[in-house]
Amino acid sequence: MLEKRTPIQIGEAVNRVMKFKKNGSTEWVSINESFGRFLSDDLRATSDVPHFDRAPYDGFAIRSIDTSEASQSNSIMFEVVDHIGAGMLSDKELGPNQTVRIMTGAQMPVGADAVVMLELAKETSQDGKKYMSVKKVHKKGENVSYRGEDAKEGEVLVSKGAFINPGIQAMLATFGYDKVPVAKKPIVGLYATGTELLEVHEPLVPGKIRNSNSYMISAQIQRVGADVRYFGQLPDDFDTCFEAVASAIDEVDIFITTGGVSVGDFDYLPQIYEKLGAEVLFNKVAMRPGSVTTVAHLDGKLLFGLSGNPSACYVGFELFARPILRTMLSIDSPHLRKEKAVLNADFPKANPFTRFVRSSLTIEDGRLVVTPSGLDKSNIIMSLAGANSLMILPGGTRGFEHGVEVDVLLLEDQTGNQWPW
Amino acid sequence: MLEKRTPIQIGEAVNRVMKFKKNGSTEWVSINESFGRFLSDDLRATSDVPHFDRAPYDGFAIRSIDTSEASQSNSIMFEVVDHIGAGMLSDKELGPNQTVRIMTGAQMPVGADAVVMLELAKETSQDGKKYMSVKKVHKKGENVSYRGEDAKEGEVLVSKGAFINPGIQAMLATFGYDKVPVAKKPIVGLYATGTELLEVHEPLVPGKIRNSNSYMISAQIQRVGADVRYFGQLPDDFDTCFEAVASAIDEVDIFITTGGVSVGDFDYLPQIYEKLGAEVLFNKVAMRPGSVTTVAHLDGKLLFGLSGNPSACYVGFELFARPILRTMLSIDSPHLRKEKAVLNADFPKANPFTRFVRSSLTIEDGRLVVTPSGLDKSNIIMSLAGANSLMILPGGTRGFEHGVEVDVLLLEDQTGNQWPW
Repeated sequence: MLEKRTPIQIGEAVNRVMKFKKNGSTEWVSINESFGRFLSDDLRATSDVPHFDRAPYDGFAIRSIDTSEASQSNSIMFEVVDHIGAGMLSDKELGPNQTVRIMTGAQMPVGADAVVMLELAKETSQDGKKYMSVKKVHKKGENVSYRGEDAKEGEVLVSKGAFINPGIQAMLATFGYDKVPVAKKPIVGLYATGTELLEVHEPLVPGKIRNSNSYMISAQIQRVGADVRYFGQLPDDFDTCFEAVASAIDEVDIFITTGGVSVGDFDYLPQIYEKLGAEVLFNKVAMRPGSVTTVAHLDGKLLFGLSGNPSACYVGFELFARPILRTMLSIDSPHLRKEKAVLNADFPKANPFTRFVRSSLTIEDGRLVVTPSGLDKSNIIMSLAGANSLMILPGGTRGFEHGVEVDVLLLEDQTGNQWPW
Repeated sequence: MLEKRTPIQIGEAVNRVMKFKKNGSTEWVSINESFGRFLSDDLRATSDVPHFDRAPYDGFAIRSIDTSEASQSNSIMFEVVDHIGAGMLSDKELGPNQTVRIMTGAQMPVGADAVVMLELAKETSQDGKKYMSVKKVHKKGENVSYRGEDAKEGEVLVSKGAFINPGIQAMLATFGYDKVPVAKKPIVGLYATGTELLEVHEPLVPGKIRNSNSYMISAQIQRVGADVRYFGQLPDDFDTCFEAVASAIDEVDIFITTGGVSVGDFDYLPQIYEKLGAEVLFNKVAMRPGSVTTVAHLDGKLLFGLSGNPSACYVGFELFARPILRTMLSIDSPHLRKEKAVLNADFPKANPFTRFVRSSLTIEDGRLVVTPSGLDKSNIIMSLAGANSLMILPGGTRGFEHGVEVDVLLLEDQTGNQWPW
């Protein structure tokens, strides 16, 4: 007996899911553990940078006024009264024709308002005293980095939701963030269903296959930036599945099952959602693969029933679960990044449904080029290994030819997209 | 007193470093911890996939010969003798006009050689027996996935050095790799030198700045895929630095210091290398920033003396330390990936040196476009936060205009490049 399901459009499905999006929370982690996390608050300058006037080069700090008569034929001589490295302070205040030898990054001595670069300075010594002479007029401020030149205290330098990369790590350190406010990783519960599933360590037996979806989805969850709580495998038995799902939901932020959502005779997820009292947002989407993706909502939590078919499962996660998780991670472009690329294959056969084809995106002479990463049979996991993108082939009455421009979704990317694409 | 250094070309510097590249070693980790690591061995199929003949769709397994007379006007009737889901086996051997109701993924019953899809089957029942009838001739093998169709036992499916993504996780699970051979993370020792440096938690004081390079480099090391052993900060004092460096080298695979490599009066790294008996491969490179990068070699270990200037430090790491670490991670394209992009800014001023400009690489209508991510002052860390690439502006006698094509190096990328670029 085939249950009748009405497919909805992809955009409508995304909208129904995103109605239940929510913000995540903050946790403070050591700066040593913050790389690769997402800022849950704007990063503000806690001080001016630089926070004192400093020398950007090695040289001699001077009073610029003393060089006003300098020229090729009129060398001005200064007495070197001190010598400081970065991090040191001179206790000398410069008088007329006095200078302090100064290293890159050191604070300007009191009275100094310019730096003579080493290349332009001639050093001499006489009677145990050191001298420097220069033949060029220096303006006030020449070769000085002034306080606040790079950043002003209070300024927002990086926005909330940013992926913490090495540059942001440097900024966090500069501004004294030894603890960093990052988005707490949402916890994703995961069950695999299917009597045909063996554990990874089990030997193959006729009719059964090893559970690969759980490992694939776990990696997808981690790639998004969330944490996995894997509860294990469930047989195709209604009561067992119901009890397991019901008790696991409380421990997680969102819940994913793989398998059990088709209209096959052993697919119990729909009845489980019903018995739980969950509101089913949709159970069929006009797309390939992933058409049987089911999403339900229960007491503020989303339950994702992904197909047991690996590629349908993969696509269903990226389109529907990803933006929910990325939103919880403070990211305001939570959807897969969409770009245009040149199609590097022929798809002569028309298909009434929008297809998401696992693809390899490369760059040739500065242009994106997209090639399907394997036969697009829905039971082949091989093509997922080489996939860094999903090519979108809109449904319709015609095929697609080598060389046309198509949309692609980037899988290994922190940039993301807002909705609608 | 300025020490005279002779700059060498970038390519020559890379070659001198890469002469000392070495392979890393393997460690076996649980499949649950393998996401994001690098395979240290080829991934081979440990069995055929599928490893039995199976139904790719829900339907009825039949003997194709029984449909040879089927047509729109001649419906062929089968008795349904069994009903199996995925993971179940039928103990029935099909006789003439017998069929087994079969679910996606289930093993074909003995005697069956085709599957009638559900949509083409008409189900009836009579006297407590179930029947199915079909009006279409089915060929031998129709709707059957044969053993080994997707992969053959022994076949290499993914090469050594691959970044383990969700698709590869699925393959590892499929082939029973509950332990996965991954490249052991090289350990990178790290010291920051500079009397001007404060710890991140310390309040600012005149003349001093917080150490940001260590956090930046730590993140760069992690982004490459290696582990950091951070030893702390050192003052600009020869004996302290020498003792610290000498005793730390033994604990790590490569060693990085930041600062202390200029020709400033408090830059001790050159003398430290000398006292250690290390062979200096170069101490000046014809590039900006990063010209004072120094690399030395001691008893099979590379010592990287990176500039204390944040952007020079950043670039020096990516050009010289990265390929050494990526090689240890089994990756055969260990250098930064180089692509072409359209320049989205003017650089009117010629510069005799090849410049690496921190940039933001975007995609516009399928084309790479590169924009400098900030003023390219070498003491500004701000521009590093927005940088996902380094634009290469070759040294010469002319500037660069908006719209020309330039080379860019991708920083957030697992693909990499071989040498020479």
